Amino acid sequence: MTAGDPAADLVDAGLLVPTGLPGVYGRSAAFDDVRRAVGALVGDAARAEHAEAMHFPPLVPRRQLEQLGYVRSFPHLLGTVFAFEGGERDAVRQAETAERHEDWSEFQRMTDLVLAPAACYPVYPAVAARGPLPEGGALVDTGDAYAFRREPSEEPTRLQMFHQRELVRLGEPEAVADWRDAWRGRALELLRDLGLDPRAEAASDPFFGRSGRLLGGSQLEQGLKLELVVDIPGSGPTAVASLNHHLDHFASVFGLRTSAGRATHTSCLAFGEERIAVALFRTHGLDAGGWPDAVRAALDPLQG
Amino acid sequence: MTAGDPAADLVDAGLLVPTGLPGVYGRSAAFDDVRRAVGALVGDAARAEHAEAMHFPPLVPRRQLEQLGYVRSFPHLLGTVFAFEGGERDAVRQAETAERHEDWSEFQRMTDLVLAPAACYPVYPAVAARGPLPEGGALVDTGDAYAFRREPSEEPTRLQMFHQRELVRLGEPEAVADWRDAWRGRALELLRDLGLDPRAEAASDPFFGRSGRLLGGSQLEQGLKLELVVDIPGSGPTAVASLNHHLDHFASVFGLRTSAGRATHTSCLAFGEERIAVALFRTHGLDAGGWPDAVRAALDPLQG
Repeated sequence: MTAGDPAADLVDAGLLVPTGLPGVYGRSAAFDDVRRAVGALVGDAARAEHAEAMHFPPLVPRRQLEQLGYVRSFPHLLGTVFAFEGGERDAVRQAETAERHEDWSEFQRMTDLVLAPAACYPVYPAVAARGPLPEGGALVDTGDAYAFRREPSEEPTRLQMFHQRELVRLGEPEAVADWRDAWRGRALELLRDLGLDPRAEAASDPFFGRSGRLLGGSQLEQGLKLELVVDIPGSGPTAVASLNHHLDHFASVFGLRTSAGRATHTSCLAFGEERIAVALFRTHGLDAGGWPDAVRAALDPLQG
Repeated sequence: MTAGDPAADLVDAGLLVPTGLPGVYGRSAAFDDVRRAVGALVGDAARAEHAEAMHFPPLVPRRQLEQLGYVRSFPHLLGTVFAFEGGERDAVRQAETAERHEDWSEFQRMTDLVLAPAACYPVYPAVAARGPLPEGGALVDTGDAYAFRREPSEEPTRLQMFHQRELVRLGEPEAVADWRDAWRGRALELLRDLGLDPRAEAASDPFFGRSGRLLGGSQLEQGLKLELVVDIPGSGPTAVASLNHHLDHFASVFGLRTSAGRATHTSCLAFGEERIAVALFRTHGLDAGGWPDAVRAALDPLQG
């Protein structure tokens, strides 16, 4: 790895393809085979729990993030989608400005879309729209879904757009708490089966600004967020998965009710697919063909 | 299907999950198994031609689309990414405005990112960055990649974000023209193997405005765009794939040269995965389990 570019080893090995934008790479077949095999492991576990698959594109209604307070808590991470709504005259002025590489933002209008900051956001309103939860609550598998965070960085473990595979549990408070406790161990085990050495750490979200520090402190105090951290060679300690307990944050905004009409809690478990893939390549070697048999066996599709 | 919602049959069958946004749906496992099987078919054909996989997230440098004239040709389709760059005081004002559901666009700044309007856009600069093409040129498989078009519509075949699987051919003009001619028939055959009845039609891109109509006319006249059109029950004639010959449009902007230093042409073949999946469900039935054996056999992963 050169000192200048923390992704140089992965780029030189042909695993990542630079785009000229920080935190935006193309991925080779070798990289994505591993990434998807990791996602499939999570998917297998989800199927064993009869999770329902809901695969959303990384767009959510702007109004929902306004309602959820996301704009207040994470203004620095959010990407909003703008578009042109003008007529022919404005289109020409916009094009001329753009082709001179000058500022053409005045011609762009905010749309009703924002980029999904996490794979689970579209799940809560979709489940709520069905009415009360079935008995026992619900479990949703988001599949390998893109999320966007506006954090330009040269670090290959901090991408602006990346895949999360999330399991989302919705139900009675005790059932959700039990699910979360059970998955704490199962998620650690899943990562250990891949030859990684994860540890669970209490964590907080990167809330914005001074008041955000208070929110983060309260989140820590209540034990609402747990990160599974792996020491990635070249990148240091990195959260590759997180277990997040939302209490009734999503449920109250979207009117989620249990079958008995009781208040609902939600919790999610998010695996960062690209981060886990980078951890695997840097831990076991840049050629997946040479990885330990046990790791290749755990990543089933790599066997074929 | 109700008259009101042209996606009602797919939603009622649980294949698509509404989000409240036109042209933005969640997809069930049953829908996505079919969509991905279609992508895998294209991927198999690409592998047989020794295509290189390059899987990009749906973000491209804004500057590149400015250079390519995309802002002039398709201002109505482009989505640009904006984000917040201010300090604590602006963050509070932005949040308060957002939580009142009023216009907070003044706090958002244009970033260096736009949403990819097609899967192939990141491929050209990535290949150009390597220097002259290898002898024989190059062939790239984009994988199942998202593309964004700002065309809000209730029609389930016109999504704002959808998967394209694209094959991109770069090389000497004759080689690229030959590839395109060969794939015209192969792509038709691939769709016929799925029990669809496609036809190839000369087409033009939906250029913006009056001057756009001239561009479209010239594109038609030169025979640069071919669409594979299928009559989708409930949606009518729909382009489910397109073969696009760019001559030296991308090559000249990104400085693509052949191994002999000659001018380079590029051509791409794009399959619209969600459109083909909708065509299959509406042609063969909303339960893929009951599809003709030959169709299920062609979609190999559905067999298992």
